[in-house]
Amino acid sequence: MRIGILGSGNVGGTLGRRWARNGHTVVFSSRTPDSREMKGLVQETGPTARAATVAETAHESEAVLLATPWPATRDAVAAAGDLSGKVLIDATNPLLPRLDGLEVGTNTSGGEQVAAWARGTRVVKAFNTVGFNIMANPQFDGAAALLFYCGDDPAAKQAVHGLAKELGFDPSDAGPLTQARLLEPFGLLWISLAFTPGHGREFAFQLLTR
Amino acid sequence: MRIGILGSGNVGGTLGRRWARNGHTVVFSSRTPDSREMKGLVQETGPTARAATVAETAHESEAVLLATPWPATRDAVAAAGDLSGKVLIDATNPLLPRLDGLEVGTNTSGGEQVAAWARGTRVVKAFNTVGFNIMANPQFDGAAALLFYCGDDPAAKQAVHGLAKELGFDPSDAGPLTQARLLEPFGLLWISLAFTPGHGREFAFQLLTR
Repeated sequence: MRIGILGSGNVGGTLGRRWARNGHTVVFSSRTPDSREMKGLVQETGPTARAATVAETAHESEAVLLATPWPATRDAVAAAGDLSGKVLIDATNPLLPRLDGLEVGTNTSGGEQVAAWARGTRVVKAFNTVGFNIMANPQFDGAAALLFYCGDDPAAKQAVHGLAKELGFDPSDAGPLTQARLLEPFGLLWISLAFTPGHGREFAFQLLTR
Repeated sequence: MRIGILGSGNVGGTLGRRWARNGHTVVFSSRTPDSREMKGLVQETGPTARAATVAETAHESEAVLLATPWPATRDAVAAAGDLSGKVLIDATNPLLPRLDGLEVGTNTSGGEQVAAWARGTRVVKAFNTVGFNIMANPQFDGAAALLFYCGDDPAAKQAVHGLAKELGFDPSDAGPLTQARLLEPFGLLWISLAFTPGHGREFAFQLLTR
């Protein structure tokens, strides 16, 4: 494929280099395609790669990877010109500047709501990210299903960790209660997949580390 | 532990039965503790279990599992009375009645924003849920990292699936572009953990199925 990269940072650079090595034609966009950084990236990527303006990159490509920082995303799309019919791979996240939330999306959660209703209680968000069938048996051929939890009280979290562990889960601390803003959509992701025709509910996630 | 279950449905019933089998003292709450359903649940759970009102259940328990449907959650917390100092395990999700969104949380996404800015383009949300270090190498000792994507154009999604697969990912279709509302918080979850001191960024998720 002819793949254009809008935003040639860590994500765009990594994916562009790897796709080029697989034989795709990769164009990296830049406001300064002749800069030393861009020349270095192109050289490292190989003979099929080149750098171009955003508009040229978009024009030449069948698929366009959008890997810009969120504040630059709108301008990048505008500068790309007509993208009709192309595949636009959106790898952005609408992050707030300090990475502590989403600009487009939620800024509260049911967990925080519960904590406001139950003042003085040590709320731990847990067991909301998989269905009861996984709670009944979190083991997949010897592998333990991941169970995220979050909360603001370390002792309460420790207790919940134990309660999940003894059921056969691999419990994992996702941070403070505000992380419920992320674990609740994670729960809805599980639910939406479980109800997708042909998918079914006998699935969970495992943490891979190295 | 003495564990109280608020909401004795699939989730509350499953967890209560399993914790009781592990030796915990479990109390299931009900507006009708003497009903046949509750008696059946208690009998099935074993000799240490019993049913009680919400207030009794909460009063007697060190840890309270909140496993109510979202519309019943506020009343359940109110009926529980003083929960100060207790561990409140919140397993709810603030789901809309048709399970197609969250009542508390986002009802749009960066991906949909991008699609509105780039009209006529076939947007696929992808490569936003793990860091570039995982994109550089999605293999964990032979296991492939999961990569969710979503979008409204089947052919565009097929192309992105291939582009992820060839990099060593296990790509998985998460549904229409509105699912970006869930995949973006999933991306932020990865980011927030990667930046947690002592956690690091060499992790990803694997799909477990059975």
